[in-house]
Amino acid sequence: MALATRLQVPPELITVAARRVMARCEELARVTSTPGSITRVYLSPEHARVNRLAAEWMRELGMTTRQDAAGNQVSRLAPVGAPDAPALLLGSHLDTVPDAGRFDGIIGVLMALEVVRLVRRRDEDGVASSPFPFALEVVAFSDEEGTRFGKALLGSSAVAGQWEASWWDLTDEDGVTLREAFREFGLDPGRVGEAARRPDELVAYLEAHIEQGPELHRSGQALAAVSSIASARRFQLIVEGEARHAGGTPYDMRRDALLGASEAALAVERICRGEHHIVGTVGQLEAFPGAVNVVPGEAHFSLDLRGEFDDTRDHTWDEIARELDAIMGRRGLSWQAREVHSAPAVFCAPLLQDVVRAGIGGEAPTLFSRAGHDAMSIGAITDVGMLFLRNPDGISHHPDEAVSGDDVAVGIQALAEAVLHLAAEPR
Amino acid sequence: MALATRLQVPPELITVAARRVMARCEELARVTSTPGSITRVYLSPEHARVNRLAAEWMRELGMTTRQDAAGNQVSRLAPVGAPDAPALLLGSHLDTVPDAGRFDGIIGVLMALEVVRLVRRRDEDGVASSPFPFALEVVAFSDEEGTRFGKALLGSSAVAGQWEASWWDLTDEDGVTLREAFREFGLDPGRVGEAARRPDELVAYLEAHIEQGPELHRSGQALAAVSSIASARRFQLIVEGEARHAGGTPYDMRRDALLGASEAALAVERICRGEHHIVGTVGQLEAFPGAVNVVPGEAHFSLDLRGEFDDTRDHTWDEIARELDAIMGRRGLSWQAREVHSAPAVFCAPLLQDVVRAGIGGEAPTLFSRAGHDAMSIGAITDVGMLFLRNPDGISHHPDEAVSGDDVAVGIQALAEAVLHLAAEPR
Repeated sequence: MALATRLQVPPELITVAARRVMARCEELARVTSTPGSITRVYLSPEHARVNRLAAEWMRELGMTTRQDAAGNQVSRLAPVGAPDAPALLLGSHLDTVPDAGRFDGIIGVLMALEVVRLVRRRDEDGVASSPFPFALEVVAFSDEEGTRFGKALLGSSAVAGQWEASWWDLTDEDGVTLREAFREFGLDPGRVGEAARRPDELVAYLEAHIEQGPELHRSGQALAAVSSIASARRFQLIVEGEARHAGGTPYDMRRDALLGASEAALAVERICRGEHHIVGTVGQLEAFPGAVNVVPGEAHFSLDLRGEFDDTRDHTWDEIARELDAIMGRRGLSWQAREVHSAPAVFCAPLLQDVVRAGIGGEAPTLFSRAGHDAMSIGAITDVGMLFLRNPDGISHHPDEAVSGDDVAVGIQALAEAVLHLAAEPR
Repeated sequence: MALATRLQVPPELITVAARRVMARCEELARVTSTPGSITRVYLSPEHARVNRLAAEWMRELGMTTRQDAAGNQVSRLAPVGAPDAPALLLGSHLDTVPDAGRFDGIIGVLMALEVVRLVRRRDEDGVASSPFPFALEVVAFSDEEGTRFGKALLGSSAVAGQWEASWWDLTDEDGVTLREAFREFGLDPGRVGEAARRPDELVAYLEAHIEQGPELHRSGQALAAVSSIASARRFQLIVEGEARHAGGTPYDMRRDALLGASEAALAVERICRGEHHIVGTVGQLEAFPGAVNVVPGEAHFSLDLRGEFDDTRDHTWDEIARELDAIMGRRGLSWQAREVHSAPAVFCAPLLQDVVRAGIGGEAPTLFSRAGHDAMSIGAITDVGMLFLRNPDGISHHPDEAVSGDDVAVGIQALAEAVLHLAAEPR
């Protein structure tokens, strides 16, 4: 690691930056489709509103900004005289799960803006530029959670040039296809390829994110570098039995799809608990026709499976599938699974792990991420690095999700220092 | 049993009547809020449409008809010179469960109309009247299933004068209250009491219905008299845990509400199977927030509990509640139950069982009904009797629900004969 220029700003500026991040988290939290809680999904009116807010904040820093062909809000600050210089991407996402917290994704976008504010150069006329041989770009990804269409990382997949044609027919809970939602939002499905970036346009991608787990809270540390992001697979499962009258159908004639799905959810827990570093979650489950007096003829549920390594994750899925065969066989039910998401484990580049640890300073811890992040997609086109912030009690995807202003302040400083360390690297 | 006048009509008339019933079942099946399947709920545009159709068919028989203050369609044919004579009520309901069959409830209304057609008297000018000392009324109840508001038997409860003020705040899945739905349908919540009938206005209530169970199919018989209707209780249950990120939350920190609800559904099955003549059904279950990547913090489910006798039903609920305490305690979850429906077992009057058996003729079987029926509410104001029709394989509350035209023909004949037997009884 080369000796790097250290950030030369008064500490008060960092404090002010962290306060602005916290205030903007509150401001974004008010943009929701579910008043009283936070829900902001891809291609919704709320998506458009937060993109407009982010664009305003980007322009305020002297950056140019555009909404790309997949609805990501992208901003750029080039070095003087090198408008086409490759870019260091900084960012995260602005979409949320239903009934979300205020920080997951959001804090990474807002911290990236503060890093640009701290490191940018301004000439005598106040015109901003990148002080590095590369441009600085802040990206607010449009869909990371996959809340609306069940497919995660749509925004960053478009940027990575990995958009798949089969996704156009994914539907939301109202039956609206992704294709229709694109058009309704004002985007052209035929041009989604234009959101893709080429590896030679990019220097690296750095993302700050709350940990979404309890490790830093348990160890009493504010920040960590990330070594890798867990591999994940997601399935939508359907169990089919027979809908029958709840009163008149004796137990020996029932083929109750909900009871099969209930056994399946418990089997997922039992099997994954028995593995090391694997978690399986059934987050959605619904019975159909869904009447109080009808034996459910069909049940739908989701399965989210994550592991540190691809092979143990796949082995666990095989074991779950065998168990589902047994459960459904006993109950006279049939089942099928559609894989809606699959992402291999992504490893952060050693150099970027080094600059993040150097940015944190001292004995910086390193964690592996059980949660998925935009960096997973972007890893396909450039090196990625991540900085984790302590998440009290590890509560995320929940209104109680938290991060402290003090941790955000040291996080902004560490991320800015990491950028300076990276800029000081011989290339 | 006194010797009764037998129905004096050519057999072809009965065949034609059964064909008309089957054709009208198809016609009503087309009135649905879910094209491609049958769903017709209380106070919906579809409810208004089937009431208009029923009214037309009632008037065609020379009956007077009105929609009562709770949305039931009621028709009447009085004896000559006795416009205020007490009435024999015949009927059933026209609402459905979601994705319903074509016969549950509907066939009872349509068969009642055919019985009126077969037994009515017509003068030289073709003006129809009841040939008995009592009036004939056909009622199409507006809500038996409880699909929309989770509370069953709303229509017949209004007729029985048992409407409860607390029901006005029940909501449908869109948050619309029963009060608002009443107004939107054009009814006045303040006048619901006007739907109530007094015992002295009524002679009895006779209802034909498909069995909604496999007993007649298994024994190879077309019709049965009903001895009693099972007691039922319905609950809406909520399990509360904590919503957390599916990737970042280790198993030892999870309080997964869906897994608690899944264990509960399986416990209901285990406990009820161990009892005699008790069935428990979880027909609805949903996880919240309901995202693929969030550990469910809340789960909602329904429980429908039925038994031949009230005390075993209540004892079973107590056992389920104890088991829920144990399950939720182990998982760090809390649970609560709201009772949304409770109906004691209702016994059919011995005289009405006799006339129905006499109407069927031969060695008529007698069954107890595990399913609830409008007769349960009406039992509070007058004697009730029921006729069951064979339901192939016992499939009900499902698109495959069936009844044969031949069984409908013998059913119409039996119901008409039962009315004649009743009229011949000394009063």
